[in-house]
Amino acid sequence: MLKTISWEKGKVRLIDQTQLPLKLIYKSYGNYRELAKAIKKMEVRGAPALGIAGALGVLLGIQNSRARDYKEFSREAEKAIAFLSRSRPTAVNLFWALERMRGNLRKNRGKSIPGMKKALFSEAREIIAEDDKANRKMGAAGARLIKNGDSILTHCNAGGLATGGFGTALGVFFTAHKQGKRIRVYAEETRPLCQGARLTSWELMRAGIETVLICDNMAGEVMKEGRVNKVLVGADRIAANGDTANKIGTYGLAILAREHKIPFYVACPTSTLDLNLKKGEEIPIEQRSGREVSEPFGKRIAPKGIKVFNPAFDVTPAKYITAIITEKGIALPPYRITLKKLRR
Amino acid sequence: MLKTISWEKGKVRLIDQTQLPLKLIYKSYGNYRELAKAIKKMEVRGAPALGIAGALGVLLGIQNSRARDYKEFSREAEKAIAFLSRSRPTAVNLFWALERMRGNLRKNRGKSIPGMKKALFSEAREIIAEDDKANRKMGAAGARLIKNGDSILTHCNAGGLATGGFGTALGVFFTAHKQGKRIRVYAEETRPLCQGARLTSWELMRAGIETVLICDNMAGEVMKEGRVNKVLVGADRIAANGDTANKIGTYGLAILAREHKIPFYVACPTSTLDLNLKKGEEIPIEQRSGREVSEPFGKRIAPKGIKVFNPAFDVTPAKYITAIITEKGIALPPYRITLKKLRR
Repeated sequence: MLKTISWEKGKVRLIDQTQLPLKLIYKSYGNYRELAKAIKKMEVRGAPALGIAGALGVLLGIQNSRARDYKEFSREAEKAIAFLSRSRPTAVNLFWALERMRGNLRKNRGKSIPGMKKALFSEAREIIAEDDKANRKMGAAGARLIKNGDSILTHCNAGGLATGGFGTALGVFFTAHKQGKRIRVYAEETRPLCQGARLTSWELMRAGIETVLICDNMAGEVMKEGRVNKVLVGADRIAANGDTANKIGTYGLAILAREHKIPFYVACPTSTLDLNLKKGEEIPIEQRSGREVSEPFGKRIAPKGIKVFNPAFDVTPAKYITAIITEKGIALPPYRITLKKLRR
Repeated sequence: MLKTISWEKGKVRLIDQTQLPLKLIYKSYGNYRELAKAIKKMEVRGAPALGIAGALGVLLGIQNSRARDYKEFSREAEKAIAFLSRSRPTAVNLFWALERMRGNLRKNRGKSIPGMKKALFSEAREIIAEDDKANRKMGAAGARLIKNGDSILTHCNAGGLATGGFGTALGVFFTAHKQGKRIRVYAEETRPLCQGARLTSWELMRAGIETVLICDNMAGEVMKEGRVNKVLVGADRIAANGDTANKIGTYGLAILAREHKIPFYVACPTSTLDLNLKKGEEIPIEQRSGREVSEPFGKRIAPKGIKVFNPAFDVTPAKYITAIITEKGIALPPYRITLKKLRR
């Protein structure tokens, strides 16, 4: 299994995903400001991995604290939480993990400083362990939907690199593959940052799963030719009604799937559910630099001064989603009811 | 106006479009084999421009002919025609122009060799002149559909660079813009070769038309947010029933347009109609090298050995097409009837 992001010797160690698949390079960050910068640059990305990054970032903020009381200590922790929460706006798992760390801090306010530190470390370890466990359960649940001979289209990277190391959507593929099911995966390259070409292809090929790379605009043709019979993607935030924010392009893909009568599945841990939001319109969508589009990988392809629209995510309305696969089971429509049950 | 491709001093002179927008470089080809190679490499591309390239390629094949009779002369011409016809399989305009040159040759078989040469040169000049005239008429016809304040999405490049110099879909924009209509164009980058980012953006910005570049997978979001109210694209071949082959991604775009109740228009000269084909399934689709996807612009982004599916075109069924704009007027469904009328 990949070690996408972990705590090692007082630092956060992560795979710099911007360099994959050409180089597998690990980086270590000793303070949360640098880690937040790495998150912004997408050295680490993927909703569940961002949750882990958030939790570990808080540890960076407090591990060397010389605070003498709860007030001082919590101020330091809150500073880290606030800073980290500004790194990426869409994936809810980041806020969810930061909120858990905050809750842990408050719960243990009666303890000594070393006691509070220990509790936070334990909470972060718990978040990582839960991620792994959830991914494996999700893999098992989702694999029941995968048949021998299936050909499945996926978008972006919902793999080990988007989590602590196992994967959500790709975790389903890994599990089905291990069960001996013969599957083929069409990976959309996922412009502008090409996580599909760079990361998903790399993970699937490493696992020995047959992988075909396509450009994002080829999905319609792939479906029309009957080359895929399922679509499975991850998620960055899901509202109470099932509306799902995921990497830009997911929405269009869901429409194409419906037009071709192909089931469209989402796999994510329940930490991706944001039941405080009634519907998708309330999910904030990160806008990123136009240069990701006009200068892919440092090479300019468009005229100087070109205007660019570059939303990092879109929201797929629940009506296009066949089922949502989580570690607590598979939710079917109506999601307003079934998601609430899962979160309990 | 651009001089995309022209005959100059015994050679075919063309803009090497693979180098745009960074460099505007003209290349000259003195024999048809080299020209065919340039077509394969897409130094010149776009259905109407390929028609012109075909006609001029035949001239390269016969201009220095020392044939003594029709049989020898036509053998030389046919060699060039056969070679050029193997360069790209999908755009019908190439075959249409080659067929016209062949027809001209046969019609003038009674003439002297210089007389036959003169006739072929005159036929090629006619093809170029007709292209320009057709583009301008199409521009005028299409501009009637464009309203002040419109925001229009386009895919790939159906501009001056895809024709002798004026453009089909972009010709409509140029005309509307000259009429004083304020329009905005969303240009899809059009992976893998990014003709939208490289060529369409460049042409539109040169003309002073507001242009916004997006990745292909952003079209759904752009439509959902109400940022565009029309889609207009070119075409590479249209069957008798209106099924339209165009750059890969067009099919998905048409489905998205219908889902968002946005009209979807195609602009092309009637030389793009292939009424011998009953329906789109009969149109051959060019498959191109996977390296265009896995190594965009010479930079590898996917793992070594990755399988790639890279169709250069797709076919949009007629049911998704609101209207087809040609130099002979605008065809509405049922296309089986209206296209036949236009071709008369």
